[in-house]
Amino acid sequence: MAKTLSVEAPRIDGARLSRTLAELGRVGAYKDEATGLTGVRRLALSAADGQGRRLVIGWFKAAGLKVSVDRIGNVYARRAGADESLAPVMMGSHIDSVPTAGRFDGCLGVLGALEVVRTLDDAGLRTRRPLTVAFFTEEEGCRFGTDMLGSAVATGRIPLEKAYGFRDKDGLSVRDELAKIGFLGTADVRAVKPHAYLECHIEQGPILRRHGADIGVVQGVQAISWREVVFTGKSAHAGTTPMDLRRDAGVAAARLSLELRRMAGSGRFGAQMRATVGSVLLGPGMVNVVAGTARCTVDLRNPADAKMAAVERHLDAFLKKVGREEGVKVSWRQTAKTPHVPFDAGVQTVIADAAARLGLSAEPILSGAGHDAQEWSRLCPTAMVFVPGEYDGISHNPREFSTPKQCADGVNVLLAAALALAERA
Amino acid sequence: MAKTLSVEAPRIDGARLSRTLAELGRVGAYKDEATGLTGVRRLALSAADGQGRRLVIGWFKAAGLKVSVDRIGNVYARRAGADESLAPVMMGSHIDSVPTAGRFDGCLGVLGALEVVRTLDDAGLRTRRPLTVAFFTEEEGCRFGTDMLGSAVATGRIPLEKAYGFRDKDGLSVRDELAKIGFLGTADVRAVKPHAYLECHIEQGPILRRHGADIGVVQGVQAISWREVVFTGKSAHAGTTPMDLRRDAGVAAARLSLELRRMAGSGRFGAQMRATVGSVLLGPGMVNVVAGTARCTVDLRNPADAKMAAVERHLDAFLKKVGREEGVKVSWRQTAKTPHVPFDAGVQTVIADAAARLGLSAEPILSGAGHDAQEWSRLCPTAMVFVPGEYDGISHNPREFSTPKQCADGVNVLLAAALALAERA
Repeated sequence: MAKTLSVEAPRIDGARLSRTLAELGRVGAYKDEATGLTGVRRLALSAADGQGRRLVIGWFKAAGLKVSVDRIGNVYARRAGADESLAPVMMGSHIDSVPTAGRFDGCLGVLGALEVVRTLDDAGLRTRRPLTVAFFTEEEGCRFGTDMLGSAVATGRIPLEKAYGFRDKDGLSVRDELAKIGFLGTADVRAVKPHAYLECHIEQGPILRRHGADIGVVQGVQAISWREVVFTGKSAHAGTTPMDLRRDAGVAAARLSLELRRMAGSGRFGAQMRATVGSVLLGPGMVNVVAGTARCTVDLRNPADAKMAAVERHLDAFLKKVGREEGVKVSWRQTAKTPHVPFDAGVQTVIADAAARLGLSAEPILSGAGHDAQEWSRLCPTAMVFVPGEYDGISHNPREFSTPKQCADGVNVLLAAALALAERA
Repeated sequence: MAKTLSVEAPRIDGARLSRTLAELGRVGAYKDEATGLTGVRRLALSAADGQGRRLVIGWFKAAGLKVSVDRIGNVYARRAGADESLAPVMMGSHIDSVPTAGRFDGCLGVLGALEVVRTLDDAGLRTRRPLTVAFFTEEEGCRFGTDMLGSAVATGRIPLEKAYGFRDKDGLSVRDELAKIGFLGTADVRAVKPHAYLECHIEQGPILRRHGADIGVVQGVQAISWREVVFTGKSAHAGTTPMDLRRDAGVAAARLSLELRRMAGSGRFGAQMRATVGSVLLGPGMVNVVAGTARCTVDLRNPADAKMAAVERHLDAFLKKVGREEGVKVSWRQTAKTPHVPFDAGVQTVIADAAARLGLSAEPILSGAGHDAQEWSRLCPTAMVFVPGEYDGISHNPREFSTPKQCADGVNVLLAAALALAERA
């Protein structure tokens, strides 16, 4: 490990950061009926995403960064270093959102990295290594079904041609939708090899706030498994079909949802197992027709790969049992799967040291959500800076909120850590 | 009761009936992926419904019937009687369908009545009372949420202006959709007062077929209650939100589905209680977002009003319990409710006598489904003729099938019963 910078790092402009977050948050804004708040709906490669991308690229260019777009729509913005022969320190995240989002998820990492560059410009500082600010396509996976898509392609986990073929629920392909919003770039998707990768992100959970910690030093990302499960029974008249003659796909879906909740609460698969059925589509979906089909999503999380494997074995057995007992056919496909990803211990130390020098309390934390950082960790030393969130860290919801100070603390740590890493030989 | 006709009734042309059913079944035909069969999708007031209506009206006119359309789009086709001062005997049903239908539900009653008229024309017979063949708007309730809509308006249960305001899930109103397909008629919705009402319909259940009966003499319709239940919890990140902090509307919906199934199986609410959750819409409905809202339909059936009331009390208590235990707000509205409707004993006798004279085995049966007949039973003596169906009487499914003989038997009974009733003073 190189030693951290001996000079005092400059401080970022927290008000400017908040203004920039608010401005991007207006792109794809919608009125959320459930909360009465203004939320953000900027699904990957939608028109709103295109508008958001152009806004952020405008800011990159205004900060003098050299922008390139690769073939999967990832955007890289480079600030020259004193030694251009050295690999850059990259800071990144995403600006696509779930359909009911706030304005912090992903955006804090991208606009925080922009704020780092603006601060260095204001201070007239040039780093030894170049700095790259990046944002990646379809991190959420909400539209095309596979999360971390852009960074997975950039780091070689998913081949470009395979990613191009992924389609949304309307049958629109990644490639066509990239072209439609003008982000089917020309740069090689495998061209970027950073010296290190840093990502600042909201925690999206309650832990840091409950512990009173200013900063989370992320140790890694828990294992994630997504499935799409389809039950096929028999649609039938709701008024005349006796209960014991039914093959009700909706009942099978309900059993799946409750079994996953029971499993998570049983303790058998670890206290941090999480399981969610976030989408259920019944066909034909009418009040007086027994459902003949049910298409369900399953989202499983576990900090331990072995426990995740046990969850999946139990789920396999349960699906067989439900199929037999309900007289429904069961099929499923894996829509995403990532193992537990440990982050680099050295980069974690750099982040913890940066927080300490800034007088911020920091604690190690495991991420419950997937992040672009887990993809980049295959290519280079990587770790993340977590920022606490209010309201139990609610996220994927318009109530998502981190205070200006929480955000500024996180980005000051990002700045200090990036400066430290960028001085390394 | 008047005595039945002493002369031998003519017999209908079963092949002509089957051809007519097949021809109407091509309007709104679709390829059903679940079954590999061609199904029927002719939702009320859709373009396909308009096309089907015009086809049937063409047949009515070709048979010399005088056609009128009322303000709710019900279609009446009148055949003059020897004594035009007497109220007509009406035969009717519906031609709208659920989204995944076969070609018999409703259509058998309408085209069977047309076949009765054609048979009388062929035989050169004029009845004493006029005969009316009718079909009614939105019997299924699948599109605008209230079943038996047209006959409910014609018989005074639902005011016309209220019915006009009902909207489908795209916000389109009954009135506008009637106008769009050219069926916003001008006849008074309350003008028709039949002497008696007959409806021939498929059973949509397994009972007649299992008992080897040719004909069901319908004693009445069980009580029906439809609700739309909305659970409002909190959408949240599926990866980071601990299970015990969730307010998952999808879990609440799953519990509702399984509790209803448990109730029906418990025997506590009668062996013939039926309960179905046919539609569940989760919001936002994404793989990695805990559902903040769940909108569910509930379809309850019971032959006994007192037992239905007990089911609803239990359901009310269960919804409160789920709301409390899951931390979700629960709201619901009644989208349809009809009590047990007993049919006229005299008309049942006419039907049973007709079957006996035709050498057909008949048995009394209670209808599990709602029918237009239950609305007309408020205005005049009413009963129904049920025809068995193959494959356990599956309905609301492209596999729905009654053999040409089963259909012809039912329509021969309809003819004989109509002749008997039409001779009464």
